[in-house]
Amino acid sequence: MTTFDPATLSYNEQGLVPVIAQDHGSGEVLMLAWMNAQAVAKTLETRRVTYWSRSRKSFWVKGETSGHTQELVDLRVDCDRDCLLAIVRQTGSACHTNRRVCFYTSVSSGEEVELMSPEA
Amino acid sequence: MTTFDPATLSYNEQGLVPVIAQDHGSGEVLMLAWMNAQAVAKTLETRRVTYWSRSRKSFWVKGETSGHTQELVDLRVDCDRDCLLAIVRQTGSACHTNRRVCFYTSVSSGEEVELMSPEA
Repeated sequence: MTTFDPATLSYNEQGLVPVIAQDHGSGEVLMLAWMNAQAVAKTLETRRVTYWSRSRKSFWVKGETSGHTQELVDLRVDCDRDCLLAIVRQTGSACHTNRRVCFYTSVSSGEEVELMSPEA
Repeated sequence: MTTFDPATLSYNEQGLVPVIAQDHGSGEVLMLAWMNAQAVAKTLETRRVTYWSRSRKSFWVKGETSGHTQELVDLRVDCDRDCLLAIVRQTGSACHTNRRVCFYTSVSSGEEVELMSPEA
């Protein structure tokens, strides 16, 4: 068995990998955000999903201010080692719009159709 | 209702958005790849998921050579309009290693654990 080293992932020019968050219970795809190697290490160490905020240029412990935390259930690396899948226990809504998931707009009909309202 | 225009998405410096492919039946996250605005339009028009290959710098009609096609069931845009979720009917394996999904390596224990073998 190989010990996992976050430095062995393929990061982009900004030193980041995309991370897909999926709900452990429902299987819903919640959101996509980004991690650098340190955020990957922090997430594994704390079991609290920690992204890198590209706008704020700082660590982003998901739910730190909103309470909408993501507890890590499993972290998976893809075949090319340039993308991660975080399987999580989501508290509250994953989306900053207060919807359960970020992917609430369907466009496959050619029209933008909102599938989900903000939580009460 | 607003007509969906692929030009209204937020593309990165390379003109691309990440696209998460999820299996319609099982809910499994299959893979992550990239689309430019034309690939988004082609996918909607043909209902065959068409990515942009960053290595080959050309359209990549998923399964065109392998037969492992992705039929579009729904396409969703996230809250920031910088990521897509393609819900698909996957024929055969999504991963080029012939595994059902690309995320077959678990690292949450600190060791790399392979969860899935290539299909027979």
